[in-house]
Amino acid sequence: MLGDDFRRIEIVEVGPRDGFQGISQFIPTETKIRFVERLFDAGIHRIEVGSFVSPRAVPQLADTPQVLEASRQLSGLAAQVLVPNEKYGRAAVEAGADVLAFVVSASETHNMRNIRLDHRQSVEAYRRLVDMLTDNVRLRLNIATAFDCPFEGRMDDSAVLSLLDVLAPMRPDVELGLCDTTGRATPEQVGTLFEKARKRLPAVKNWALHAHDTYGLGLANVFAAWRTGVRIFDASFAGLGGCPFAPGATGNVATEDVTWMFSRMGVDTSIDLDELLAIAREGASIPGGTPGGRVRQAFTGGMKARFSQVTAPAET
Amino acid sequence: MLGDDFRRIEIVEVGPRDGFQGISQFIPTETKIRFVERLFDAGIHRIEVGSFVSPRAVPQLADTPQVLEASRQLSGLAAQVLVPNEKYGRAAVEAGADVLAFVVSASETHNMRNIRLDHRQSVEAYRRLVDMLTDNVRLRLNIATAFDCPFEGRMDDSAVLSLLDVLAPMRPDVELGLCDTTGRATPEQVGTLFEKARKRLPAVKNWALHAHDTYGLGLANVFAAWRTGVRIFDASFAGLGGCPFAPGATGNVATEDVTWMFSRMGVDTSIDLDELLAIAREGASIPGGTPGGRVRQAFTGGMKARFSQVTAPAET
Repeated sequence: MLGDDFRRIEIVEVGPRDGFQGISQFIPTETKIRFVERLFDAGIHRIEVGSFVSPRAVPQLADTPQVLEASRQLSGLAAQVLVPNEKYGRAAVEAGADVLAFVVSASETHNMRNIRLDHRQSVEAYRRLVDMLTDNVRLRLNIATAFDCPFEGRMDDSAVLSLLDVLAPMRPDVELGLCDTTGRATPEQVGTLFEKARKRLPAVKNWALHAHDTYGLGLANVFAAWRTGVRIFDASFAGLGGCPFAPGATGNVATEDVTWMFSRMGVDTSIDLDELLAIAREGASIPGGTPGGRVRQAFTGGMKARFSQVTAPAET
Repeated sequence: MLGDDFRRIEIVEVGPRDGFQGISQFIPTETKIRFVERLFDAGIHRIEVGSFVSPRAVPQLADTPQVLEASRQLSGLAAQVLVPNEKYGRAAVEAGADVLAFVVSASETHNMRNIRLDHRQSVEAYRRLVDMLTDNVRLRLNIATAFDCPFEGRMDDSAVLSLLDVLAPMRPDVELGLCDTTGRATPEQVGTLFEKARKRLPAVKNWALHAHDTYGLGLANVFAAWRTGVRIFDASFAGLGGCPFAPGATGNVATEDVTWMFSRMGVDTSIDLDELLAIAREGASIPGGTPGGRVRQAFTGGMKARFSQVTAPAET
C-alpha cells in the first residue's frame, strides 16, 4: 500500500485485542462481537479481533474463536489475529483468520519477559510460522519495543535493523509494524527509524506504526511516520489499552484521534467519524477499561460555539 | 533565536494568563504569584503573567499589576503581558513588563467577536503600540485563528500571509506567533504555513507557535513547527486553558508535555521536568480549571514497571 496513494491510509483497529486484553473483568462475547460489527460498519476494514493463545495466558481473549467466527460474516472485513507461534497460527488460519500478527521485541530483555523466548528462539518461531503459511494468509510482523524498552531504555536503531535483516527476508511480502510499546518514542525518532528501515529493506512494501499515546505523543508519532510514507496505523477505539508500565496511564493511540487528524488533513481513512465516536463513547465505559484519546471529549462537549464566554481580549 | 541552536528551544509559559483567564472563580493573587515563582524556579525563563486590560473584561486578571510587580523580583525572568492597545501597553511598560503580546485574528469575523475591531482598526492599534514602544521592550505579535476559525473554518494561508505583510514590517524585530486558537490545525498545515511565512518574511527572525491540544494534536503541531525551524513555543502548565468553543474540552498544550517531548528528543528546554510536574499537579487542582495534557497522568501512575501484569504474548 505504501506510496500507492498519498491521500489514503489504512487504520487497523486493535481495540478488540490490545484494548480488551488488559481488562480483567470479562467482556461478554456478544459485546465483543457487537463492537467488531459496529467498528466494521463505521468503515474500519481491518480489525485485530483477538489472540489465538493459551486461554490461561490471556483469559479475556479465550473467546477469540467465537469472535473470529462472527467476524467472518462481515463481508469485506480483514480479520486479524495475534498468534505466538506456528501451532496457534495454524489454528487461527483454520478458523478463518485473514491476517496473522506475530510479535518479536527488539529488546531481548523485553522479549524474554513478554513471550519468554530469546531472540534466536523467536526467529525460529517466526520461521516455522512463515513456513506453515500459505500465500493467501497475510502476515503482519510486529517489532515491539522498536523505539524504547522499559528495561533497556531507548533502543538503538541498529538493533531494530539487525533484527529486520534476519526476519524480513523470510517472507518478503510481510507487513512490517514498528511498535512504540512504552509510548516514549519521539516523532523525530519514529521518522528516522522508518526512513532507515525502508531504505535498508526496499523489498518490504507495507510498513505500519503501532503507536501508544501514554505521554501524548501518539498523533505526533503517527504524523511523523506518515511523513516518511507509512500508510498503515494501528489504533484502538476509545484509546483502550492501558500501559502496563504506568498504572492508570492510557495506552494505544485512539482510533478516533487518528481518524480526526487524517480527516482534517484531507487523507481518506474510509471511516465515519461520527459513528466511530458513538462506538468510542461506549468503549470508554467498558468496566475496568482505561480510556484515552482526546477527540472523544472535545466532541462530547459539543462543537457549538459559546461566544458569550469570549471576553476581550482573551483568545489566542 | 531561530536557527541559533538546533537543540535548544524556548517555552513561553502562558498558564497564568491564558490558563487562568477562563477560570471564573478568582484565584488569589498570592496563589498566582506563587505559581509564577515556582514556574520560574523550575527553569521557565519567560512567563506571560497576565493581561493589562479592563478589569471588567477579564476579572480573573484584574490583579495582573500585582503579579507583574512580584515577577519583577525574579532575576532573569522575562515577564510578558498581553495588551489590547497602546494605552494598556504603555501602562504595562511603566509597570515593568519585559515583553508585550498583542493579538490580531487572521479571521476578521473572529477579530470582531474577540476584540471588537475590524482588521483595519487592529492594524492601526498595532501601529500605535509599535510607535509607542522603545527598543528595550520586546514585542510578540500573535496571529489568532491562523489555521482555523470557529466561524470561518479552515483559514487560507494567503489570508495570514497578507496580514503579516502589513503588520510585520512595522517592527522588523517582532516575534511572530501563529496561534491555533481552535486546536484544529493539523501538523501538515502548521508546517506548511510556517515554511511559507518564513520564506515570505525573511527579516523576521523569531517565530513562535501557540498550540492548543483540544483534539490531541498539540504535540504533533509543536513537532511540525519545530521541524521547520520554529524554536519558541507557548504552553500552559497542567494544560490549563479550556476551549471556549468546546465546553469541557481542554485547551493549551501542556508545558509538561512539550517539555517531555523535547527532553526525549535531546532538545534543551532549560526546564526541570520533575519540578514542573509537581507544579502541574497543583495547577490541575485549581477549582474551576480544566486541566489537560498527558504526561502528568503517565507519571502520576508511577514509572515502576509492573511486569507481572504482562501476560504472554500480550504486548505490542
